[in-house]
Parts: sequence; C-alpha cells; structure tokens
Amino acid sequence: MNENSRPFKPFEPLVERIKKDGICLDGGILKVDSFINHQIDPTFLQSMSIEFVRRFANKEINKILTIEASGIAPAILVGFLLNVPVVFAKKKKPSTMGNMLTTEVFSFTKNKAYTVCCSKDFLHKGDKVLFVDDFLANGNAAKGIIDLVEQAGAELAGMGFIIEKSFQHGGEKLREMGLQVESLAIIDSLDNCEIKFKEAEV
Amino acid sequence: MNENSRPFKPFEPLVERIKKDGICLDGGILKVDSFINHQIDPTFLQSMSIEFVRRFANKEINKILTIEASGIAPAILVGFLLNVPVVFAKKKKPSTMGNMLTTEVFSFTKNKAYTVCCSKDFLHKGDKVLFVDDFLANGNAAKGIIDLVEQAGAELAGMGFIIEKSFQHGGEKLREMGLQVESLAIIDSLDNCEIKFKEAEV
Repeated sequence: MNENSRPFKPFEPLVERIKKDGICLDGGILKVDSFINHQIDPTFLQSMSIEFVRRFANKEINKILTIEASGIAPAILVGFLLNVPVVFAKKKKPSTMGNMLTTEVFSFTKNKAYTVCCSKDFLHKGDKVLFVDDFLANGNAAKGIIDLVEQAGAELAGMGFIIEKSFQHGGEKLREMGLQVESLAIIDSLDNCEIKFKEAEV
Repeated sequence: MNENSRPFKPFEPLVERIKKDGICLDGGILKVDSFINHQIDPTFLQSMSIEFVRRFANKEINKILTIEASGIAPAILVGFLLNVPVVFAKKKKPSTMGNMLTTEVFSFTKNKAYTVCCSKDFLHKGDKVLFVDDFLANGNAAKGIIDLVEQAGAELAGMGFIIEKSFQHGGEKLREMGLQVESLAIIDSLDNCEIKFKEAEV
C-alpha cells in the first residue's frame, strides 16, 4: 500500500445499475450501452463524475485526458466539475493536425492496432493529467495514454474508469506501476454470462 | 417565417472566442480544436449548452441525439441541463449491436461515404429529438440523422450547431425543410483565411 493504493470500494449506485441494465454476452462482453456508451444517462453520469472528483481529491489536476469516443462523456463532466480543460486523444490522425504525439494501441476486441494521437499544443510539460475512460480491460489503451503523457513530459495524476474487468488484468498492471487507478465498479468474472462484482475491501 | 424560423442572433461570447482562438486554414477549414473539438473548455461549453436550451425552449424534447465523436461533449451538457437521455450515433456498426438503424453519409472532407448507425432500442416512436453537433457544413451528416429519425418513427424537434459554415449551404437546405435550425455562430466566408461572421438579423 502506498498513497496511490487504497482499499477498493464499489460505487454502489453503479453496481445496482449494471445489475439492472447491463447485458452479459458471450466472450466476456458486458453491454452497458443503455446508459454509458451508446445511450447516456447524463444525470447518472454526473453522479459518477462527482465520485471521480472525490476519489482523486488528493491529487492536483489541471487537465482531463480521454480517448474518443465513449470516454468523452464522463471526461467532460469531470472536467466541468473541476473547471479544467478536457482533451480527447483521437484514434485517427486528422489531416489538419500537425505537431502531434502518437502511439500505437493494440485492440484485442478488434484484433488490430490503431494509432492514438494528441496535439502537443494541448498536452505538455507542467500538465497534471487525470485520465478518464469508460472501460478498463487489458489496459492497452491506458498504456498508450501513459506513453503519450510521458512523451509530452506531463505528469499522470491518476486514471479513473467507470468499469474495470479485473479478469483481463489491465488494472493489475497499472497498479503495479504505482499509479492511482480508481474504478467505480470492478467485475471479477463474466463466466457463464453471470456478472460477478468485486466486493468492497476492508 | 414560421414558428421554426426566427431572426438569427449570434452567441456573442462564441464569436469573440473564435476571433481569439480560431485558426483559419486553406480550403475553408476553421480549426477550433483548442476549445471545441480536441481540447474542450467545459465551462465555456456549458454556457453554449445553456444557450441551446434557451433557443429550443419552445420545443418539447425527451432525447438528445448526436454523432460521435465531437458532438458528444455539447450533447451531454445539453442532455444534463434538460435531464434527458443522450444518444450518440456511431460511425461504425459495433459487432455487439443488433437491431440497428443505419444510414449512409458522404463526407466531402474525407471524400468517402461512411455508415452512421443507432440502436432501435434508443431511438423510436414517441421520441422528440433534439440533434446537437459541433459543425454544420454541407449538412450531409444532418441529413443522415434526419433519415435515422424518420426510420425510427421519431420526431425531430430541432437541430443545434455550435458553428455553421453558411457558404457550404447545409443550413439553407435544412431550413428549407421547415426545421428549426439554431447555430450559435454562422460563418459566411473563410476566403483568404479571413473569418467573416454573419451579423445579427433584425
């Protein structure tokens, strides 16, 4: 245990909502597209954003970073609450953007690598960055973000995820790096399409 | 003039912000990625979202619709203010989504067509939809949305854009269809990389 590692506590309203509206599909897939990543319940999302603010209250943060597209909604609400800029890394290099930081991320879901990029104008030395995203699975996207933050000479204050799938081990790797990783709900297993939540640690 | 057509008034703080931070590139491109579509100023975005709420106060709205990725931020804040669900149409059909409405949109910028899709679960008869997006140019994406809303048997209450480029004529076509189209700033020309704003109508 260090300052970045605290006993896990689930955000109970999210656990209840997943039980009510989450759909488990074969292959370890949890669909939450009725309230998080296709249709969004903004008032519920706000309550989760407040929880992120609370969990990272120990950190100085001057920028929120996310990846398009489904990270944007939670990131913008956290950014609004903290009154700091929100930057969303892009999955394709736009033709009108020069001066870019880029990294490669391998997606197991899509079985291919994609480029994630961010303008050097909006991520640089002096930034204390909180990364916010909807899902943490194997952590490849998160590692791409860590790479971008390092390239920029910025500092990573922490990483917040709405849902972590611990059986894909991304969270484990990130925490081993000494990062403060906060997940509002952690799912230990989706075997046999049954959602098993990680309980609160004491 | 009908109930959906009112004299244009720019949202002055946006005009000032574009003058300050917008960058004009060759080919009729206006870059606003320091505060709208790469880095986002959430407090300023909130002020624009309040302006959308004000402009569509005449309409009953039970759902906000947008297209990933840069429409999500303004849409989520408008949805939060109105306390209604926000749906973002996707640009690729996800492998885990059945039961979809789809439409084709031709992008002049990228010179190719792409598919926009939305689950039938989240857009259906009885919905009174406000579409929110960052840019209105030739209106092709907007017409794709109109197609999705029609397929769903839903009703389009209006369309709100942060920035309209009138010289690409999308707004003209949408208004001719009798739709309430509200743009917070309208740019009449970017010729010679000079930003010419449409003035308030009397």
